[in-house]
Amino acid sequence: MVTMLEVRDVSTIACCAPLIREPLTQSNAEQLAQTLKALADPARLRLLSIVAASPDQEACVCDLIEPMGLSQPTVSHHLKVLTAAGFLARSKRGAWAYYRLVPAALDRVTQTLISA
Amino acid sequence: MVTMLEVRDVSTIACCAPLIREPLTQSNAEQLAQTLKALADPARLRLLSIVAASPDQEACVCDLIEPMGLSQPTVSHHLKVLTAAGFLARSKRGAWAYYRLVPAALDRVTQTLISA
Repeated sequence: MVTMLEVRDVSTIACCAPLIREPLTQSNAEQLAQTLKALADPARLRLLSIVAASPDQEACVCDLIEPMGLSQPTVSHHLKVLTAAGFLARSKRGAWAYYRLVPAALDRVTQTLISA
Repeated sequence: MVTMLEVRDVSTIACCAPLIREPLTQSNAEQLAQTLKALADPARLRLLSIVAASPDQEACVCDLIEPMGLSQPTVSHHLKVLTAAGFLARSKRGAWAYYRLVPAALDRVTQTLISA
């Protein structure tokens, strides 16, 4: 079976040393703000947590619509934003798209926000 | 000297178990999204990092305007958002307002986003 995997290079996400250590540059602040904006939405946070709690931290889009209680296009839009930000990797298998958590993307955010 | 300290109860911030452990409820997702929105702005991230990198993790608003290159009302607006979200505590001393980092607020966010 051919799998097309769409995954963003997480090294470009949330770039920087912990923000409590040294003032962020404007460029790093813009990059981190963009990454946080992808997370700062209730539907996207719920989607991310549902995918993360699934076996192998992966879920078919077909299994995400009912628990979200949203239309398929809306769910797909939020999944696209999370994939573009690097938090999910998308693969196509047959008719369906599957989304897998990219833990390293969350790690880069938490490393930047860590307080100690 | 009388100090008025304005600080939010951080226990109400970013409420929950790590989102990778179990699906977030709608209510918890809304709360976390609101907290992340307060962070997801380049100016607010830079302000937070400048305050955090200051001695005692505290800075006078009078010392934040020049490094930000923004007007005083704009800087004050962003500081108000960060204070309302619990990331900064505000105290008034004489004519000036001082802002201090609340590390526990960042900790609660990172504990929720942690990937392992």
